[in-house]
Amino acid sequence: MEIVDVETIRYSRTKRRRSDEKGHTHPGPEREATGTLTHVAVEGGPDGYCPGGDERAVEIAKRHLVGEDPLYREELWNRLYRTQRLHGGTLHDKAVCRLDMALWDVAGKVAGLPVYKLLGATRDRVPVYASTMVGDDDPDGLGTPEAYASFASDLVSRGFEAIKLHSWMPPYDASPARVIEMCRRVREEVGRDVDLMLDSHHYYARTEAKRIGDALADLDFRWFEEPMDEHSMSSYEWLTSEVDVPVIGPETAEGKMQTRAEWAKRGVADVGRVGVTDVGGITPAKKTASLYESFGMECESHGDNVGNLHLLCSMAFPGRYHEYGLLHPSYDYEANDDPAVVNTPHPEDGYIEVPDGPGLGLEYDWDYVEANRTN
Amino acid sequence: MEIVDVETIRYSRTKRRRSDEKGHTHPGPEREATGTLTHVAVEGGPDGYCPGGDERAVEIAKRHLVGEDPLYREELWNRLYRTQRLHGGTLHDKAVCRLDMALWDVAGKVAGLPVYKLLGATRDRVPVYASTMVGDDDPDGLGTPEAYASFASDLVSRGFEAIKLHSWMPPYDASPARVIEMCRRVREEVGRDVDLMLDSHHYYARTEAKRIGDALADLDFRWFEEPMDEHSMSSYEWLTSEVDVPVIGPETAEGKMQTRAEWAKRGVADVGRVGVTDVGGITPAKKTASLYESFGMECESHGDNVGNLHLLCSMAFPGRYHEYGLLHPSYDYEANDDPAVVNTPHPEDGYIEVPDGPGLGLEYDWDYVEANRTN
Repeated sequence: MEIVDVETIRYSRTKRRRSDEKGHTHPGPEREATGTLTHVAVEGGPDGYCPGGDERAVEIAKRHLVGEDPLYREELWNRLYRTQRLHGGTLHDKAVCRLDMALWDVAGKVAGLPVYKLLGATRDRVPVYASTMVGDDDPDGLGTPEAYASFASDLVSRGFEAIKLHSWMPPYDASPARVIEMCRRVREEVGRDVDLMLDSHHYYARTEAKRIGDALADLDFRWFEEPMDEHSMSSYEWLTSEVDVPVIGPETAEGKMQTRAEWAKRGVADVGRVGVTDVGGITPAKKTASLYESFGMECESHGDNVGNLHLLCSMAFPGRYHEYGLLHPSYDYEANDDPAVVNTPHPEDGYIEVPDGPGLGLEYDWDYVEANRTN
Repeated sequence: MEIVDVETIRYSRTKRRRSDEKGHTHPGPEREATGTLTHVAVEGGPDGYCPGGDERAVEIAKRHLVGEDPLYREELWNRLYRTQRLHGGTLHDKAVCRLDMALWDVAGKVAGLPVYKLLGATRDRVPVYASTMVGDDDPDGLGTPEAYASFASDLVSRGFEAIKLHSWMPPYDASPARVIEMCRRVREEVGRDVDLMLDSHHYYARTEAKRIGDALADLDFRWFEEPMDEHSMSSYEWLTSEVDVPVIGPETAEGKMQTRAEWAKRGVADVGRVGVTDVGGITPAKKTASLYESFGMECESHGDNVGNLHLLCSMAFPGRYHEYGLLHPSYDYEANDDPAVVNTPHPEDGYIEVPDGPGLGLEYDWDYVEANRTN
């Protein structure tokens, strides 16, 4: 078997999301956008695909992949990883993730098995939490504690038994008092049987984070996520020792499983975290999950990515939840699916099923892609 | 897919190995012995096999395996692991290893791929080191420093570029001075281009271990293995800080990847260690390799087991060597192969190839097994 080409497929689509000045996502008017797929072409097939793509990263990566056996995923992932050092701006972890996932797609198709069974399966569905967008000032959005409470109630009525609140972050007012009040109102609204988590402004100072964390402990929140810059491991070590609510992380801290090993070693967080896009693919995400398991730590996953679903369905040690969203009162998440992907997984009754087809299990609308292709 | 039965196949064979009073292996007169295979029977196939077996362990394990999907390796391994707690004397890690390896054999056969490619391959052959039996007092054996030196020279002439010396251990004289003299003679004999390692008496006191370790550093040994009881992590932490030769471990310490996480966390050894039989299979051995990789630590493998070969061939971060042996001047290791296994891997020019057939890649002589079956 030999990889003969790697390419980024680009196609036009519409989107109904906009980013604020800090980069956080909110609903927006429909606009033209670009969809992408990463395609690993294998002589004689099967080819591998992954949603998302980056042409500049692929140009660098293909030098290391073309001519190689796609089943040597570990070797190829390590080549890409070691190539990143001199290509920090282009061959980023998200790009490596898509290439790695496309290689897992090949392997699963060769084996005739879904990726989670290649990894060693534990289950074929996982509970999800509804993950909200960050707060805003939209009249029909998440502009007040009451608006969050009302949306949380709506999510529970739609079958979600767990909700993660992304609170206000700049440019909106992110004062600890306001965030705590919002968490209090949501807990009052949904009662004690719903799991609640808070993901908050990444740049609080330690005492601000402690003030929020103490409130979350009183409100019986399941975890407290990213209140401070994750590059300051000492701040998280301090916070973890100061508050009773479990502190979770890291998400954005670079350094893949190595950084997560240091967090585990020092007890920087109570609960570990991994997302395939954050660490560069299923290959390092599996290593990270193994690392946390070896330390007896839970490992929760970050992001609504089918790679995380496959990983979660191969873990016997929690990871409990798949993150579903980002959701918003005036945004139909399901209706805004990528039109190139036929079977984007969505939850039912609080659970989401991992696609059971070979490889990643995603099916593509090639007619749509060809009709709207732009490269 | 469903597991319908698990059994231990027993057959008669001959052996030419005996154990001394401490349990170490030496050449012996040919004797009748029992060979075993662990067999996981799957409805409609393919069945999984692994050399070795333990009827008492299998009786406990099969309650947790029969009726289950064999592709759920991670789930099934965790069930066995959690069952061990109340069955410490019977459902030991070696037994769980064989069951786990038989499940990987099934998965590979379903996928039509060798296990190392399921794991994500990096290479199809690895360098080996020749691992000697422990010293003895046989006139044609390993009774003097000169005898070790002569055997080391013989091993080099047979293509081995690395040798691990199991020095004298009780009931033979294991004094540090004698062991150091043996190491010195071997280094003189083979020169500086051959990698030498020492695996020594497990019950030295700290200062004895330091004395040997200092000598090994001067003699440019690659590593120093198990001079003390591995349950004393503090002793290894002390030794690692005291000597310049890299200290390796743990091998026999129970506790799978969790114990190895604690060694990595505390810097108890310079180089990590895993063997599939020590930690309960390929599933936890892969976790352990990931753990060490996350800490930037080398992870060397223990034992001449085909499961270790598959693991090594899926690792991009060293693990450099497969352990081959135990070898002895008057014992033909290859001629004493298990007659049930047709294609036991043996090295050539210092390298050993991983079997490339589906699953573990081992082929069995079913005619021999049936003709000699005893259960």
